[in-house]
Amino acid sequence: MSCYAHPTALVESEAVGSGTRVWAYAHVLKNAQVGENCNIGDHAFVESGAVVGNNVTLKNHVCVWEGVTLEDDVFVGPQVAFTNDRYPRSPRMAEVRGRYADKNLWLVKTVVEQGCSIGANATIICGVRLGRYCVIAAGAIVTKDVEPFALMMGSPARRVGTVCVCGEPLAAGGESKSCSNCQAKAAENGHFQSHGSAR
Amino acid sequence: MSCYAHPTALVESEAVGSGTRVWAYAHVLKNAQVGENCNIGDHAFVESGAVVGNNVTLKNHVCVWEGVTLEDDVFVGPQVAFTNDRYPRSPRMAEVRGRYADKNLWLVKTVVEQGCSIGANATIICGVRLGRYCVIAAGAIVTKDVEPFALMMGSPARRVGTVCVCGEPLAAGGESKSCSNCQAKAAENGHFQSHGSAR
Amino acid sequence: MSCYAHPTALVESEAVGSGTRVWAYAHVLKNAQVGENCNIGDHAFVESGAVVGNNVTLKNHVCVWEGVTLEDDVFVGPQVAFTNDRYPRSPRMAEVRGRYADKNLWLVKTVVEQGCSIGANATIICGVRLGRYCVIAAGAIVTKDVEPFALMMGSPARRVGTVCVCGEPLAAGGESKSCSNCQAKAAENGHFQSHGSAR
Repeated sequence: MSCYAHPTALVESEAVGSGTRVWAYAHVLKNAQVGENCNIGDHAFVESGAVVGNNVTLKNHVCVWEGVTLEDDVFVGPQVAFTNDRYPRSPRMAEVRGRYADKNLWLVKTVVEQGCSIGANATIICGVRLGRYCVIAAGAIVTKDVEPFALMMGSPARRVGTVCVCGEPLAAGGESKSCSNCQAKAAENGHFQSHGSAR
Repeated sequence: MSCYAHPTALVESEAVGSGTRVWAYAHVLKNAQVGENCNIGDHAFVESGAVVGNNVTLKNHVCVWEGVTLEDDVFVGPQVAFTNDRYPRSPRMAEVRGRYADKNLWLVKTVVEQGCSIGANATIICGVRLGRYCVIAAGAIVTKDVEPFALMMGSPARRVGTVCVCGEPLAAGGESKSCSNCQAKAAENGHFQSHGSAR
Repeated sequence: MSCYAHPTALVESEAVGSGTRVWAYAHVLKNAQVGENCNIGDHAFVESGAVVGNNVTLKNHVCVWEGVTLEDDVFVGPQVAFTNDRYPRSPRMAEVRGRYADKNLWLVKTVVEQGCSIGANATIICGVRLGRYCVIAAGAIVTKDVEPFALMMGSPARRVGTVCVCGEPLAAGGESKSCSNCQAKAAENGHFQSHGSAR
C-alpha cells in the first residue's frame, strides 16, 4: 500500500509512508518526511525539512514548517499555526539578508511529542517541546515547554488540568484517580499509562 | 439559475442552492448542504454533513465541519475555526480507534442562528448555540452559548455589549434606545426586531 | 525578470512586480497591486484593490483584502487575518444590502508601514496604522494604532517593548542602548536607524 494523493494535491516528497492520505489542494514539499497512515487535510502544507511521524492527523490549513517535528499519533486541529523564527522579518529586506542567508541564525526548532493534540486555531511559538499526550486548547498560544499530559489553555497558555491518553480531562485532583472515560490509571508520577499498559 | 463554481473549485454536493458562488480552490464535499445565494470564498471547505442556509457568506479559508449548522444570513470571517470534537485525538492512534468508530462518541454539534456574524480568526468551541444576530469579535474564542444580539469579545469570549440587526453595537444602556445607524427599535425583551418588522 | 507563478497559482493582476514569486494555490486577483521581489506563499490571497509593496513576504494562507496597504519590507506570518469591515454582516442579508452597495459605508482601511512584522495567527482589526518596523507577536489581536518599533502582544495587543530594525527586542529601558544583535543605535527619539544609516 502506498500513499494516496487527491488529484488536486501536490506530493513532491518521496518520503511519505504507506497508507497516508493527502487531500485536496494540500502540498507536501520535496524532502518533507511523513510517516505511515497519516491524514493530511485539504489545503495543508508540509515544508521541506519538516518531520511528521506515523498516524498523525493534520486538519485543514495546517502548515508544518522546517524545524517542526510531530511525533507519532499527533493531532493538529484546523488553522493551527506553527512558527520557526523568533524574530521574523521579511527575508527580502536589505537589512536582514545576512541573517536569512544562514539557517543557524534564525531557524528555531519545535518538537510535538507522541500523542499530543493541538486544538483549532492554536499558535505554537517556536523553540518549545510539547510533552507527550498533552492537549492544547483551541485558540491557545503556547509560549513555553508543556509537560506531558498537561491541559493548556489561554493566551499565553497556562496549565489548567491534566488529561488522559484518551484526551478527556480529569477532575481537579484527578491525577491520582482513574479517568472516568477509559479507566486508565494515573501513574504515580502524575502521568498516565497508555490504555494498553494500564490494563 | 444554478450555482457557480470557479474552474479550480470542487463542488461534489448536489445540494447547493441556486445563485450560490463557490470560489477558487474551495471544496464543497458530497452530502454537504448549502442554501441559495451564498458566497463561499477561496480555499473554504464545507464537509459532508455540514448544513449552510441561504444568503450565507463564508470568507476565505473557513472550514465548516459535519455537525455545524449555519442558519440563513450568517457571516463567517476569514480563518474562523469551527470544531466538532471536544477531546480530539488523532483517530489513527491505536488507543482511541474505538471512539472514532462511532460518531455518537465524539461528534458534538454547533448551531449558528440566523444573521450571526463571526469575526476573522475567531474560534468556536463545539457544543454551543450562537443566538440570532449576535456578533463574535475578531479573534474571540467562544466557549459557551451566546445570547441573541450579544456582542462577544475576548478569550474566552464575554459579552461586552449589544448589537443591532445591522451589526452596529449600541451605546451602553442602549437596549432601550434606537440604533443610531438604522433606527431599529429595541424590543422590550432587549432584543431587536428586524428592520422590516420594526418599521 | 518578470514574476514567477507556480503552475497551480492564479495571477490575474497585471500589476505584479518583477522578481515576485507566487506559490501553489495562491491567488492574486485582477487589479491587486504587488511590488517587486515579493514572496507570496501557498494558499495566500491578494484581493482586487489591495496594495503590497516591494520585498514583502506573505506566508501561507494570508489574505490581503481591498483597503489593506502593506508597505515595503513587510512580513506577514501564516494565517494572519486582516479585516476591512468593522461591523460585518453577510452582504446577502436583505436588511444590509444597502450598506454593501456602497463601499463608503463599510470599507475601512488599514496601513502596515515599512518593515513591520506580523506574527502567525495574529488578527488586525481594520482602521489601524502599524508604525514602521513594529512587531506584532504571534496570535495578538491589534485593535488600535501601533507606534513605530513597538513590540505588541496579547488580546487586545498591548505594547510590551521595543524592537530594532533587525527584529530583536531590546532589554527594558533599551531605547537608549544599542541592540545587542546588530549594534544599531537608538535615535534620540527612541526610534532606531536602519542598519545602513546607523553605521
